[in-house]
Amino acid sequence: MNIKKDIIASAERIAPYVHNTPILTSKTIDKMAGAQLFFKCENFQKMGAFKMRGATNAILQLSDDQKRKGVVTHSSGNFAQALSLAAQSLGIKAYIVMPSDAPQVKKDAVKGYGGNITECEPNLASRESTAQQIQKEKGATFVHPFNDFNVVLGNASAGKELLEKHPDLDVIIVPVGGGGLVSGTALSALSFAPNCAVIGAEPFEVDDAYRSLEAGEIVHNTTINTVADGLKTSLGDITFNIIKNHVHEIIRVTEEEIIEAMQLIWERMKIIVEPSCATVLAAVLKSKPQFANKKVGLIISGGNVDLKKLPF
Amino acid sequence: MNIKKDIIASAERIAPYVHNTPILTSKTIDKMAGAQLFFKCENFQKMGAFKMRGATNAILQLSDDQKRKGVVTHSSGNFAQALSLAAQSLGIKAYIVMPSDAPQVKKDAVKGYGGNITECEPNLASRESTAQQIQKEKGATFVHPFNDFNVVLGNASAGKELLEKHPDLDVIIVPVGGGGLVSGTALSALSFAPNCAVIGAEPFEVDDAYRSLEAGEIVHNTTINTVADGLKTSLGDITFNIIKNHVHEIIRVTEEEIIEAMQLIWERMKIIVEPSCATVLAAVLKSKPQFANKKVGLIISGGNVDLKKLPF
Repeated sequence: MNIKKDIIASAERIAPYVHNTPILTSKTIDKMAGAQLFFKCENFQKMGAFKMRGATNAILQLSDDQKRKGVVTHSSGNFAQALSLAAQSLGIKAYIVMPSDAPQVKKDAVKGYGGNITECEPNLASRESTAQQIQKEKGATFVHPFNDFNVVLGNASAGKELLEKHPDLDVIIVPVGGGGLVSGTALSALSFAPNCAVIGAEPFEVDDAYRSLEAGEIVHNTTINTVADGLKTSLGDITFNIIKNHVHEIIRVTEEEIIEAMQLIWERMKIIVEPSCATVLAAVLKSKPQFANKKVGLIISGGNVDLKKLPF
Repeated sequence: MNIKKDIIASAERIAPYVHNTPILTSKTIDKMAGAQLFFKCENFQKMGAFKMRGATNAILQLSDDQKRKGVVTHSSGNFAQALSLAAQSLGIKAYIVMPSDAPQVKKDAVKGYGGNITECEPNLASRESTAQQIQKEKGATFVHPFNDFNVVLGNASAGKELLEKHPDLDVIIVPVGGGGLVSGTALSALSFAPNCAVIGAEPFEVDDAYRSLEAGEIVHNTTINTVADGLKTSLGDITFNIIKNHVHEIIRVTEEEIIEAMQLIWERMKIIVEPSCATVLAAVLKSKPQFANKKVGLIISGGNVDLKKLPF
């Protein structure tokens, strides 16, 4: 398997359907951090998050017969919107299983992107059985939000774009939820900038990736009491394997550090970012000596925030 | 007087000290508006607003002797920060007269940019007399936040940059407070794109510019009950004269329209903009037939918002 070739092919495949997002800098924040920071702004991606990349790549890898029958996933977050919009762009059907207690605003967003919602009980068993039923009835192909190699390869294009513009980065820091973005970024660094380390950032409250690496096997979050609502998921076997082999370390941050970093980005950079991606700046600011005078890429994973429920 | 030459000279003069800010687009908002919109993002300008341009130009026009003695202004808003930062960049002193009841966050911002604050009573008479006393004592030069031709010429560089990238705009819409930005933009359109109209956007609640044009003379706001806190000021004689001769019309918008447009920009474009600049999108959305299929430039004047006091 030639990973580099696969990443290049995936990036070319999805290019017409996604944005090559801008990379922003802030002199003020650089000064505070004592490092040179490059923010890869996936909050400006279509539907507001990097997940558009992986979803598009997964759909484009389907056979014509599979495309005719559509795709299905269970998600209440950004991936539901990403798969809906990617499917809509490509003229195929997306079936989205969402828990009945998902916020109306998220249901509306999925509908707005043309997704067909099936509601289920708010637990994993019901989500999975409902999705299986749709697979059976419609012949739709299940696409996992992160534990799918084509999704990881699609996500890898964000890191690839960042390294194309800044090939001399010392390190890239990426938020870790299910691990789909950090593992894609690690594969891109491996392929295009082997001297660039990749570090994950994770809230202490949902530090399953940190603990999984310690334990040498996947361990799950028992509580999910974090403001970083995009990072509550535990790793899958595909993402864990890549992280184990190619991610340098995981830095954990407190809820206060996340909220402070988020507010700093909003106030100083004037961009709207999710709490999840504030973890990466929080990681830099809490470990300044480690990053002193380094060139640091930060992947800002998304910007879908409920403006009525800000943490500050 | 050769306005075009003056604008070019001002733009060159301030270039090392200000950002050539990005111009963003949004397919979703274009679709809603039925027009092609180009957002000139002065919220990404240094200190978060276009006012950095005019302040810098005014200071750079001083004699060496004047520079040694510093500058003074009275302002509780963005101009206080702009003059402080511009002065700091140029190594000169800025004295800022602020009403004693100005929010602490604004005082801190001015101090953060190196401004020397003198507090006064919260009324115009006290502001003016305190500023005059500083002029007398320190020999500092008074710089008016907008009713100063060098400030207007500096502000004109934003419209110039927008027209350099998009010379075929049909119209540019600009928020109107004291008129410093709209008059600068009008002079740029006149100089670089004579077929491009310039329109002002103003809240009904503080529609002094609309009423001044109707009356043929400056009339003042009697109440200032608007969410657009940057637009409460009335016009000055210099800005009124330019507006009277070169601004095509003023479109007035309601508070609800401003708040809706602001939320739309935050949610769809993922950028933080002040209520003041949401007036320009509100103007397009309420007058769709007028802008149908047109290329419309929108000047996003700033992004300094108190995140704890959002209107939605």
